Amino acid sequence: MTSSATTTAPDESTTPEQVDVLVASAAAAADRWAATPRPVRATALRAVAERLEAAVETLVPIGIRETHLPEARLRGELRRTAFQLELFGEVLDEGTYLGVRVDHADADWPMGAPRPDLRRILYPVGPVVIFGASNFPFAFSIAGGDTASALAAGCPVIVKAHPGHPELSAATGAIVATALADAGAPDGVFAVIYGSDAGVAALRAPAVKAGAFTGSIAGGRALFDVAAARPEPIPFYGELGSTNPVFVTAAAAAARAEEIVAGFIGSFTLGAGQFCTKPGVLLVPAGSDIVDKLAAATYPPAAPLLNDRIVAGFRGGLDALAAHPNVEAVAGDAGATSPAPTVLRTTLEALLDDPEALLQECFGPAALVVEYTDESQLPAVADVLHGQLTATLVAQDDDAIAPELMGRLVTKVGRLLWNQWPTGVSVTYAQQHGGPYPATTAPSTTSVGTDAIGRFLRPVAYQGFPEHLLPAELRDTPPADDAVLRRVDGHLPG
Amino acid sequence: MTSSATTTAPDESTTPEQVDVLVASAAAAADRWAATPRPVRATALRAVAERLEAAVETLVPIGIRETHLPEARLRGELRRTAFQLELFGEVLDEGTYLGVRVDHADADWPMGAPRPDLRRILYPVGPVVIFGASNFPFAFSIAGGDTASALAAGCPVIVKAHPGHPELSAATGAIVATALADAGAPDGVFAVIYGSDAGVAALRAPAVKAGAFTGSIAGGRALFDVAAARPEPIPFYGELGSTNPVFVTAAAAAARAEEIVAGFIGSFTLGAGQFCTKPGVLLVPAGSDIVDKLAAATYPPAAPLLNDRIVAGFRGGLDALAAHPNVEAVAGDAGATSPAPTVLRTTLEALLDDPEALLQECFGPAALVVEYTDESQLPAVADVLHGQLTATLVAQDDDAIAPELMGRLVTKVGRLLWNQWPTGVSVTYAQQHGGPYPATTAPSTTSVGTDAIGRFLRPVAYQGFPEHLLPAELRDTPPADDAVLRRVDGHLPG
Repeated sequence: MTSSATTTAPDESTTPEQVDVLVASAAAAADRWAATPRPVRATALRAVAERLEAAVETLVPIGIRETHLPEARLRGELRRTAFQLELFGEVLDEGTYLGVRVDHADADWPMGAPRPDLRRILYPVGPVVIFGASNFPFAFSIAGGDTASALAAGCPVIVKAHPGHPELSAATGAIVATALADAGAPDGVFAVIYGSDAGVAALRAPAVKAGAFTGSIAGGRALFDVAAARPEPIPFYGELGSTNPVFVTAAAAAARAEEIVAGFIGSFTLGAGQFCTKPGVLLVPAGSDIVDKLAAATYPPAAPLLNDRIVAGFRGGLDALAAHPNVEAVAGDAGATSPAPTVLRTTLEALLDDPEALLQECFGPAALVVEYTDESQLPAVADVLHGQLTATLVAQDDDAIAPELMGRLVTKVGRLLWNQWPTGVSVTYAQQHGGPYPATTAPSTTSVGTDAIGRFLRPVAYQGFPEHLLPAELRDTPPADDAVLRRVDGHLPG
Repeated sequence: MTSSATTTAPDESTTPEQVDVLVASAAAAADRWAATPRPVRATALRAVAERLEAAVETLVPIGIRETHLPEARLRGELRRTAFQLELFGEVLDEGTYLGVRVDHADADWPMGAPRPDLRRILYPVGPVVIFGASNFPFAFSIAGGDTASALAAGCPVIVKAHPGHPELSAATGAIVATALADAGAPDGVFAVIYGSDAGVAALRAPAVKAGAFTGSIAGGRALFDVAAARPEPIPFYGELGSTNPVFVTAAAAAARAEEIVAGFIGSFTLGAGQFCTKPGVLLVPAGSDIVDKLAAATYPPAAPLLNDRIVAGFRGGLDALAAHPNVEAVAGDAGATSPAPTVLRTTLEALLDDPEALLQECFGPAALVVEYTDESQLPAVADVLHGQLTATLVAQDDDAIAPELMGRLVTKVGRLLWNQWPTGVSVTYAQQHGGPYPATTAPSTTSVGTDAIGRFLRPVAYQGFPEHLLPAELRDTPPADDAVLRRVDGHLPG
């Protein structure tokens, strides 16, 4: 049983002295966890998944009480969380994530000088600090994707619990710590801390080698700045804000207005609009009946948001948007005390005239419909966008505008969708959850999907070593059951 | 003919207005260069290589005059430079660097929700600013590895010329620009700028999406801070400083003192010690005859350093080291007006007592020999090291200390060597030139070898797109001659 997850009661902050102890413990565990064979790390991750799912009847009620999220959603999110851990177990078993490259010595290397024997592999970066998110109390929190990928990489993890669900954090943390200890993980490989100051102190600790975060632009940028200003700067993988624009072509609006309206309402109100991939902006042709249908539509009932801070932020953002001279209401009640799904409208000209005001993310069940008069204006919208997690085309297969619009949007986003909705981020091999700033602070990485492990690794090359001293994956004769893909002398097998 | 490389005479700085024009031109070229087929980009890189080698008789004399480097070295470096361009052509032809992953839709995906069709590929980040180095006027300058890998990735490049070789920069830049234009590259894809202010202005330009640098810790950190403080922070791939310690075990010293001394002198004096991988610290057993042999050895004659600033920096660093109460001279003349190869000595206890002073990089032909009394003290040295490009073990195959020492050093370095010397960084598939800070500002990347292209790419996922709108590499039926490795539904071929 590691002491780490239980040093602090969830209603008080972790002290600076406790942070020091936990970071030292993580640093002491780093070499052992890095050297723990991949199959053992994989088994440990699966054990965590199993214990979490076994505790569903304990955890979900705490989650409901602390986050106001509905039971079905939390049960589904716990499955997703367990699945992420299992998937990284699969990644470890296969081992190709290690990026193994073997170059044998070559006296005739055309560089003009002989090539030495060089063998490259990815190595865990060391202890990582992860900041839990408010809106995914399981999947982006204590045992979420950041934790799963960092532990899989071989890095000790310190999670700063989100204040929105402290009891759930403590309960989840205790389960993770016990499961890891029972699976033979070294003491210090996992800890939970509480309080903003503790999180910043951990991020500043010299032994910590990376940070990961999901949350607001303001909070994420402040932590990014802390990480970058350290005497030894460290990478900070922040997933911040996004408006996730949806571009509806004239042909699609003419052909499928009803389906589009239903899909859009379903997506922007899912989880009460509290997803980083919520479609916050819908561009539609002026004169189509999409706006009329949105005005006449039945919306899901108002649902409680995660906490008072989210409510205040939502209302502030929505009030500012509603007060804009070029914005008017379509549906919902922006001024109501309980936040109902709300749709506002403006024009493409107004958007291009004041993109900073009209493209602000409004975290909650609200969206802005933008009417355009000429489809050829759409690429200009792509040009004023900041970086986005997603952008969506709702279009017909033969829409002439699609290739140009795709070409412009691909420079601004991490994921581009075609006639689907951006909420519901699937955890897969090819998923990309990230994008240019402010969508993320590290657009060359993803926080969802199997490649998320790459954030916590760095390459090391071994030059001229005898076989017996090399890591097993780098040997000319690797273990018989080893399926790691190797690039040997520049060539892949097959 | 692009105008970019000839807007500024090399003896004056590029003005802010000129930087604006060149950045706008690069931004305008970005989409076209990104969309240029890989074989065309590969051909363009090979054309640059060919033109550079064809101009060897023009370029090398300018290089000799401006850098004082010997002819043979510069001819070899030009070959290396051409080879890098050719190698990235090979990388483009193969295409596996794109990291293609295809997930087909799966209604039974065990996450608990259906998996959509997701296809992921790496996309160029956009215009890049590259800061040329003083010590590699070809290979880390105008047409060096950073330029080659960024152009290969599909990014327009603006190179800030190093002031140590302005004429060579202009001459190289003109050749690159002409070769690219003749190969059909869009106008604006390549430019050279002059002056520190111009470099900073370019790094701050909103359209620029990454920076790359090789140089001093002070200079590199200042530019890293500029990149991180932008409203949109961008990655900054800085390769800064390293002392590249060499650990000689007692058994190796007993068996091979003569060979070790010869190898060490050859390595730390190569290029007058002006390599980022120069072995600056040599740990040897006290009482071995290595120190005596170093005192009695014949050293290469004093060679002129690159420029007056390098001389001043070398002398300042060496004077500080020589004045340290626990350091004494072994060979050379630290006080001479012409910098001769110089060896100083200290003890392991002194090193552990004041590592910040004794482990400073001293760029030039100097090294510090550290005598230890007990081999088991060596891992403690690894613990006080800052991040390093390299560390080297000079040891016997059955040395008992090797595994532990390797385990400690791997946490601090990008490349670990066994009975070889760290200078002479081979350009290969498995090379890793990078390491924890301050060796680099981005330890998860390399600036040498084929993986250097990864610095200038970011992933994009396409969800639900019809085949005809996808990039060719993501289609279920890719072009017949396409050898790109694809991970399909989690599986690699074979």
